[in-house]
Amino acid sequence: MHNHIQVKENNLYIEGCRATELAEKYGTPLYVLSENSIREKCQMVKNDFLNKYPNTHAAYASKALLTSSLVKLIEQEGFYMDVVSGGELYTAIHAKFPSERIIFHGNNKSLEELEMAVKNQVGRIVVDNLYELEALSTICRALNRKTHVLFRITPGVSSSTHDYIATGKKDSKFGISLDESIIFSAVETVLNDPFITFLGFHFHVGSQIFDNASHVSATEIALELVKKAHEQFGYDFKELNVGGGFGIKYTDSCEPQKIGYFVDAIMATIAAFCKDNEMAMPSVFIEPGRFIVGEAGTTLYTVGSIKKIPDIRTYVAIDGGMTDNIRPALYQAKYQATMAKRPFADTTQTVTLCGKCCETGDILIENLPLPEINSGEIIAVFSTGAYNYAMASHYNKHLIPAMVLVNGDQSNVIIRRETFEDLVQYDEIPGYLK
Amino acid sequence: MHNHIQVKENNLYIEGCRATELAEKYGTPLYVLSENSIREKCQMVKNDFLNKYPNTHAAYASKALLTSSLVKLIEQEGFYMDVVSGGELYTAIHAKFPSERIIFHGNNKSLEELEMAVKNQVGRIVVDNLYELEALSTICRALNRKTHVLFRITPGVSSSTHDYIATGKKDSKFGISLDESIIFSAVETVLNDPFITFLGFHFHVGSQIFDNASHVSATEIALELVKKAHEQFGYDFKELNVGGGFGIKYTDSCEPQKIGYFVDAIMATIAAFCKDNEMAMPSVFIEPGRFIVGEAGTTLYTVGSIKKIPDIRTYVAIDGGMTDNIRPALYQAKYQATMAKRPFADTTQTVTLCGKCCETGDILIENLPLPEINSGEIIAVFSTGAYNYAMASHYNKHLIPAMVLVNGDQSNVIIRRETFEDLVQYDEIPGYLK
Repeated sequence: MHNHIQVKENNLYIEGCRATELAEKYGTPLYVLSENSIREKCQMVKNDFLNKYPNTHAAYASKALLTSSLVKLIEQEGFYMDVVSGGELYTAIHAKFPSERIIFHGNNKSLEELEMAVKNQVGRIVVDNLYELEALSTICRALNRKTHVLFRITPGVSSSTHDYIATGKKDSKFGISLDESIIFSAVETVLNDPFITFLGFHFHVGSQIFDNASHVSATEIALELVKKAHEQFGYDFKELNVGGGFGIKYTDSCEPQKIGYFVDAIMATIAAFCKDNEMAMPSVFIEPGRFIVGEAGTTLYTVGSIKKIPDIRTYVAIDGGMTDNIRPALYQAKYQATMAKRPFADTTQTVTLCGKCCETGDILIENLPLPEINSGEIIAVFSTGAYNYAMASHYNKHLIPAMVLVNGDQSNVIIRRETFEDLVQYDEIPGYLK
Repeated sequence: MHNHIQVKENNLYIEGCRATELAEKYGTPLYVLSENSIREKCQMVKNDFLNKYPNTHAAYASKALLTSSLVKLIEQEGFYMDVVSGGELYTAIHAKFPSERIIFHGNNKSLEELEMAVKNQVGRIVVDNLYELEALSTICRALNRKTHVLFRITPGVSSSTHDYIATGKKDSKFGISLDESIIFSAVETVLNDPFITFLGFHFHVGSQIFDNASHVSATEIALELVKKAHEQFGYDFKELNVGGGFGIKYTDSCEPQKIGYFVDAIMATIAAFCKDNEMAMPSVFIEPGRFIVGEAGTTLYTVGSIKKIPDIRTYVAIDGGMTDNIRPALYQAKYQATMAKRPFADTTQTVTLCGKCCETGDILIENLPLPEINSGEIIAVFSTGAYNYAMASHYNKHLIPAMVLVNGDQSNVIIRRETFEDLVQYDEIPGYLK
């Protein structure tokens, strides 16, 4: 399915590590992350974008998955990092990511978060709304610190993806409206602010997108805006950040595009526009998140109860579920899975793979073809690198799985396994209840 | 809206605590739990069920909300506690809940969890499937410990609620099929097991139910099963556990029933059946969770950005969202909210209350009528006691809110506020990446 997933002697391997051995060594459920898959995706971005076009940059959208080790990897790859909260900013800085390569997003940054960003001198703050612009200006003035910003705009473009993750449309909680009275007043304000350097515009059209039309449309809309801003304020724009959203392969029926498919169309649009309007080419940023880590993740589970309901369905329960992967319940997301032993065995049954939460909706995969299996066997679910650990919960007081990073035949824990003691660490009991 | 929510001098109070003062003292977002609301609900269960009918018991379904302080409250109220995982079991025992009053549920209990339950001598294990029955028998034998069990059955009843939380239907990951070859073989097995005492049957028809029909139908189905088991094996059944699912008031348009509406119908059904069939009345258990804590919870948020999109919509962003309350995104759940100051002010606008996650689906309330408001004001969302903290995540590395328990004009932290340091506590970096 993916390059880092192999089958040797009828056993599933993640890079050079046998899946059943990882399960035995580290326990299940276990998130397994392939380092070389991540590096390969970074290399694709370099080949198809960074090395192909001058003055381009890529930022890893860390909301997909963020741990200290990943910060190190992204830093080594030379990428920027996109963070969306004080917590993500803290995690990046705590692992010594260079703050000038951090881009700070978010539709409702708190005053504390803005202050934290300014104090840490993050490279760019992407201002989402006028309230934030005013707050940021006040903070910069109070701290006597300058900052660089982009404006997030709402291009009014709909992408063909799940409604929850389509973010570019006009009716959106994100971004500054393109209503001229709003956007140009904001541009004028920021151009007159001595503490804020205005770099340009950012948009994000959605997630898990397979078609470049919405990126191209949004780019055209942003460029028109730049042209008008130039006409009105003599403003020469420096950067355009076209966000992420590049789709990945969750199942064999997904046919994701190469990154070049998106960026070639975007860059051609920008180049043509700049030529026609005698404008200098801006720096162009992309922000892949899922694209970098999504396929690199595999979750290993142990099969528990197997329930054959006569004439209806067979439920195969695993030792995790919606607490480590809420995407099927939340977005009706589809995943693919195989047995860690004999992954190519003839399938003889179609089962429903369900989790162990006390909730009917805790179904990971419907209609999964499997061979005959037994309780205690290991099953591998693919493409779980993005928005699995990131969205994990302690619902039912289930422990969040550990994560190991594999590189060749080496494996290392990068998120340690939780214990029951961890679950009660925040609990306090008032004296009168003791 | 609820008894513990009051308005004095145009300010919202939770019991005797002014909401804005709680927000100032403890910060936001803040889960506020009313102790007297919880005790009042427990009293309702006593009045309408425990004290009205002999030989009845109530177990608090802790998956709705579980913290050490709540364990203490439930223990004081004399209830049993229903747990669904090793983590919930640990939390109950850690706060010294009497293990003989614990009922252990779950569709895929691990061997470790079963062993933990047997070693701790929990009062009842509700066996969900044949795999578990076999595993439990092996464990009891190995530890030379006896245990008491009920069988969870799948009554094949559909309840009128969200598909995800309708659990009683035939096509379900929960429970033992009523196919006679399956259920009676299980009954025969358990009756012959010297280490296991079989007490009876359990079912759960769903959640947030306003109609007693599914409970009554499932009761009838369980009683028929008991009758057949008596005819086949001479088995006298001792307990019937009819689960929970009793609906609560989320918004003014919800019209929840009193607990008596459900239990009177269930008890009448059981009494009539036992009389007709000359059987002794069993112990009857109910398992309210949401009913006990749902209405007791209020979440306080601070308003951040306010975005008026001309001719479309006004988005009001708060400093929490789907990370502390995923129910609107996951179940399309509806909530009601007011300003903490001037809760009765004339509403002049209809807004969308959205969270601060980088995700379009992070919408808490659509079409919320509000007066004119400003950033920095406190807003209160009601009925957030159940399945809010329980399902909270660190998505976007947002911190999970603190929780305070209020009793009259007293307030005490029962879940301390997280810090950024907490976010990286599980992270490890392999030497070669440092």
